[in-house]
Amino acid sequence: MTPTPLALSWVTHANGHRDFPLQNLPLGIFSRPGQAPRCGVAIGEATLDIEAVLAAGLFDGAAKAAAEATRGGALNAFFALGRPARVALRERLLALLGEDSEHQQVLAPLLYPASECHMHLPAKVGDYTDFYVGIQHATNVGKLFRPDNPLLPNYKYVPIGYHGRASTLRPSGTDVRRPKGQTLPAGQSEPSFGPCARLDYELELGIWIGQGNEMGQAIPIGEADTHLAGLCLLNDWSARDIQAWEYQPLGPFLSKSFITSLSPWVVTAEALAPFRCAQPPRPDGDPQPLPYLLDARDQANGAFDIELEVLLLTARMREQQLPAHRLGLSNTLNMYWTVAQLIAHHSVNGCALQPGDLFGSGTLSGASADSFGSLLEITEGGKHPVELASGEVRRFLEDGDEIILRARCVREGVASIGFGECRGTVVAAN
Amino acid sequence: MTPTPLALSWVTHANGHRDFPLQNLPLGIFSRPGQAPRCGVAIGEATLDIEAVLAAGLFDGAAKAAAEATRGGALNAFFALGRPARVALRERLLALLGEDSEHQQVLAPLLYPASECHMHLPAKVGDYTDFYVGIQHATNVGKLFRPDNPLLPNYKYVPIGYHGRASTLRPSGTDVRRPKGQTLPAGQSEPSFGPCARLDYELELGIWIGQGNEMGQAIPIGEADTHLAGLCLLNDWSARDIQAWEYQPLGPFLSKSFITSLSPWVVTAEALAPFRCAQPPRPDGDPQPLPYLLDARDQANGAFDIELEVLLLTARMREQQLPAHRLGLSNTLNMYWTVAQLIAHHSVNGCALQPGDLFGSGTLSGASADSFGSLLEITEGGKHPVELASGEVRRFLEDGDEIILRARCVREGVASIGFGECRGTVVAAN
Repeated sequence: MTPTPLALSWVTHANGHRDFPLQNLPLGIFSRPGQAPRCGVAIGEATLDIEAVLAAGLFDGAAKAAAEATRGGALNAFFALGRPARVALRERLLALLGEDSEHQQVLAPLLYPASECHMHLPAKVGDYTDFYVGIQHATNVGKLFRPDNPLLPNYKYVPIGYHGRASTLRPSGTDVRRPKGQTLPAGQSEPSFGPCARLDYELELGIWIGQGNEMGQAIPIGEADTHLAGLCLLNDWSARDIQAWEYQPLGPFLSKSFITSLSPWVVTAEALAPFRCAQPPRPDGDPQPLPYLLDARDQANGAFDIELEVLLLTARMREQQLPAHRLGLSNTLNMYWTVAQLIAHHSVNGCALQPGDLFGSGTLSGASADSFGSLLEITEGGKHPVELASGEVRRFLEDGDEIILRARCVREGVASIGFGECRGTVVAAN
Repeated sequence: MTPTPLALSWVTHANGHRDFPLQNLPLGIFSRPGQAPRCGVAIGEATLDIEAVLAAGLFDGAAKAAAEATRGGALNAFFALGRPARVALRERLLALLGEDSEHQQVLAPLLYPASECHMHLPAKVGDYTDFYVGIQHATNVGKLFRPDNPLLPNYKYVPIGYHGRASTLRPSGTDVRRPKGQTLPAGQSEPSFGPCARLDYELELGIWIGQGNEMGQAIPIGEADTHLAGLCLLNDWSARDIQAWEYQPLGPFLSKSFITSLSPWVVTAEALAPFRCAQPPRPDGDPQPLPYLLDARDQANGAFDIELEVLLLTARMREQQLPAHRLGLSNTLNMYWTVAQLIAHHSVNGCALQPGDLFGSGTLSGASADSFGSLLEITEGGKHPVELASGEVRRFLEDGDEIILRARCVREGVASIGFGECRGTVVAAN
């Protein structure tokens, strides 16, 4: 199924493309002016219209059934078909878009410049769960509250997660309205109400669920990975001052639910296969996962090696035409648990996962300050501001600031692929 | 719009019916064998088929538009139309089902015995939020952890809530599979895995959202009540041992997400109007709500006086034909915040509410042990078992135990209405 590593496309701008060479073929939902949202595949700087390819009669058999399931402006039905449908569609697209394709003349008019395509969420998310599996992040945040004992006793046993808000998931490019809420000013005993003063981003991996499970039927760890449809980037925008006041005892709520941004392309499990690797060994003294979370194959090849990057572009930097400032460079290897472990854990109580459900990984900070995934960590709660080439400083985000997340998979001997961007600009509170 | 208080129906079993007299007219989704789910109205022991009434041409104008919006097996589109549509449908149904109706002969065949109707969830829930506004419950639970200081400092300022799991909401009558999960045995430092040993129920009010709001646009407290579509009963089944181990720092997760049961009928805001009352005065020394949560009309008439009851029926009690044991009798006046305050708070950060979203109130315990809404409170964490007429005792729920929630609105001079039941029986872990 996998093409020879450096196979080329007749779509020449795809060859060597940072994000979307032939080897990636991520799926998304796009629309052009006056057109209903529909499924597309990113190839270089273009989007291939899957419905138009269907109408042109270029799909057959399993690939046709898979392509038909992508109709309707959301990928849930396609995700429900699981891996065989993804593989069938991918194999056919590799043939159609590969340099030896016989269908270039038919397909060329069905490619639209990406700049003309408005991207939507790829699926209607039934439930969104945010995990907390970035152990460096959990340690960094824990230190702010408990310097001597940053990780709680359950952390290395339980893939900690909580339910998030599905109604405010938005695709990259959606403005981020500064939220209002209750905060407890330092030294006060009564809260104030007003716009968030400690607005932050969180660098996360988004995990799209493919096939679901029946309520009451746990997904065994050995099968869990087959329930992964693909990955994206996720910015879990966070109002730190609202969070600090509201989160006891039931967790974050309004401090997170104002918006969560997603990169719009689903990079499939199949495209990511070359970038699998062993789960990094647990530090000495850490417990082994409980048996329901432990699978030899998952430990050997269930992690992902994906480079993650956060950039900041302020309004003044845009005016001065300065390049975006890199706030952090991290990697998915900072996940303490694999995706399969998250799926097995989430369903072990009988909770039903559904096609198109979304997980966030939690903030994926690395061990050093240049790899942290939030301003809370970088500035140690606002104590050490970030200095920018524009002469500005940032403790937390200000109106006009844009955060850009990127991800890239690089491995010797295979074509690199990327995720595209997850962007959002802060706008003033109402 | 409101009928004279004791108006009668030609559906004679509705007159004086405990739950569903003419004055109630709750909406739900039902199906009969071989039939697609559709909207029905409960009247006495029968269900009126709204699609059939539409087909018979008995709706006109606004009532017809409202009835048409109930089609498709979920009430979301109807909820989106808000109060005017609910009122139009209700007025027409009061005329059609009232004792002076001219349409008895046409309608009689469109009434099905409730016992033949399989009830579904009334809407497709986009997001489910569980609040924690039962101040007696919060105090009782807090005492188990912090005897001297049971309520956290934010409790009287913030309507505490968290996101719940939408995919495992189920209608009354669905079995409750005992969940498995990680727990920390007393005195141990490492967790075990297995079936929950401290399974509990929680008596809650379910709150259905009607019209939604755009992301970024808060709902002002003075308008919040118009976003209420109606109420139901909700059992927030809880695995206390799993909860105790998993819930720090991000709140309950797998301890709640295995199933949440709902009574299937939406008792509309209009049917509940006679049972509105003033929000009980806050105890001396409690702070006033912040201005975004304070509205004179809401304080004067935004609460509900609804009696809530929990019953337990064990397998042995069923064998011995013993009546169900009343575990608690409480009231919605134990809510520290009104429904309007919950809606205003939930949206104040710009979070988008959508038609068919569901809130849980949190456990609505009263002040005395006979009004507690969970076994955790009644048995003080398992210390004082409940004794049953069957000779059994219960610290927590055992396989075969059925929990039955009921609600009833009673007020001098108007017809009483009820919610029907929310039932669920515990079955053994897989």
